[in-house]
Amino acid sequence: MLYSKPLARLIEELQRLPGIGPKSAQRLAFHILKQEDAFVKSLASSLLDAKSQIRLCSRCANLSAQDPCELCSDEKRDPSVLCVVAEPRDVIALERTGEFKGRYHVLQGLISPLDGIGPEQLKIKELLLQLQDSAIKEVILAINPTIEGEATTLYLSRLLKPIGVLLTRIAFGLPIGSDLEFADELTLIRALEGRREVR
Amino acid sequence: MLYSKPLARLIEELQRLPGIGPKSAQRLAFHILKQEDAFVKSLASSLLDAKSQIRLCSRCANLSAQDPCELCSDEKRDPSVLCVVAEPRDVIALERTGEFKGRYHVLQGLISPLDGIGPEQLKIKELLLQLQDSAIKEVILAINPTIEGEATTLYLSRLLKPIGVLLTRIAFGLPIGSDLEFADELTLIRALEGRREVR
Repeated sequence: MLYSKPLARLIEELQRLPGIGPKSAQRLAFHILKQEDAFVKSLASSLLDAKSQIRLCSRCANLSAQDPCELCSDEKRDPSVLCVVAEPRDVIALERTGEFKGRYHVLQGLISPLDGIGPEQLKIKELLLQLQDSAIKEVILAINPTIEGEATTLYLSRLLKPIGVLLTRIAFGLPIGSDLEFADELTLIRALEGRREVR
Repeated sequence: MLYSKPLARLIEELQRLPGIGPKSAQRLAFHILKQEDAFVKSLASSLLDAKSQIRLCSRCANLSAQDPCELCSDEKRDPSVLCVVAEPRDVIALERTGEFKGRYHVLQGLISPLDGIGPEQLKIKELLLQLQDSAIKEVILAINPTIEGEATTLYLSRLLKPIGVLLTRIAFGLPIGSDLEFADELTLIRALEGRREVR
């Protein structure tokens, strides 16, 4: 018996979070117990509120407390470009650039036969529904160049090409600030393939 | 507006935990939202339960859901040795060894004038109260060899010596499995000072 029961349970629960091992869970638990009541209540209520209020947008399948979500209902977004991503965090990453002004569609995963995830587990039906909007002229696939990402891109390109919409994919190549000498072979191959005429 | 409000709040709350920056907080939040309702409810209730049920033992100032705590009320512990530590996590570390069979006293901190922590902020009054128990023959100081630890050890030794109890301190030296060549100077000095006759 190392810990009192409620403390043991808290440490156990914290350990179920990703990237938190026994040592971090213990450290977090002791830290939490040292805080004011209000701190712990606020943390607990933020968990419950987020879980109960955040849903998937019925249109773009992104996480939001409203439906349609803030991005889908923002009249200032360009309705002619739709950017398809795997996860909500990818939307955040793209929004941080401030460059993309169109709308999104979140697949909520990638095709991964090893994990038992096929196209039917992804938000592809919802994507086809979004594409019935004739305002959409271009679909940008912003999907990671991993095995699962490639499989999903291949599947989507076969599915979407017959629709006749312009289908593009974000560029892969040397990251800005990196050094050609230290780039891996696959990145260099992609950078060569993606070369563009200098104007 | 990157996140929906309840999601933004959850990320903010998670960021207030030690060692969790903006990226980890975002990753944790997205992970939590992907889990079942029961997972989130259980995590939230474990936080609230631990915070409301765990208190300081009135005798040893360790964290516990009962008072006196499990260790203080365990009749099988040796009442003649009292081990003084700074934090509850130190009790856990010592209990893990399975070697120490006595009782504990948790100071709940160390003297640190820079952080405004003096002896009166620590559980020293409670320590003196424990020491009124005439069964205690030895007090072991198991306190880190840091500046704050040394200051606290000095303070406690001056305070406790007049009581006439045997006052000892855990040994500092080369950790087991380490290499003399790579040990820092202070550790070597402590290891030399703490040398013992080979029998």
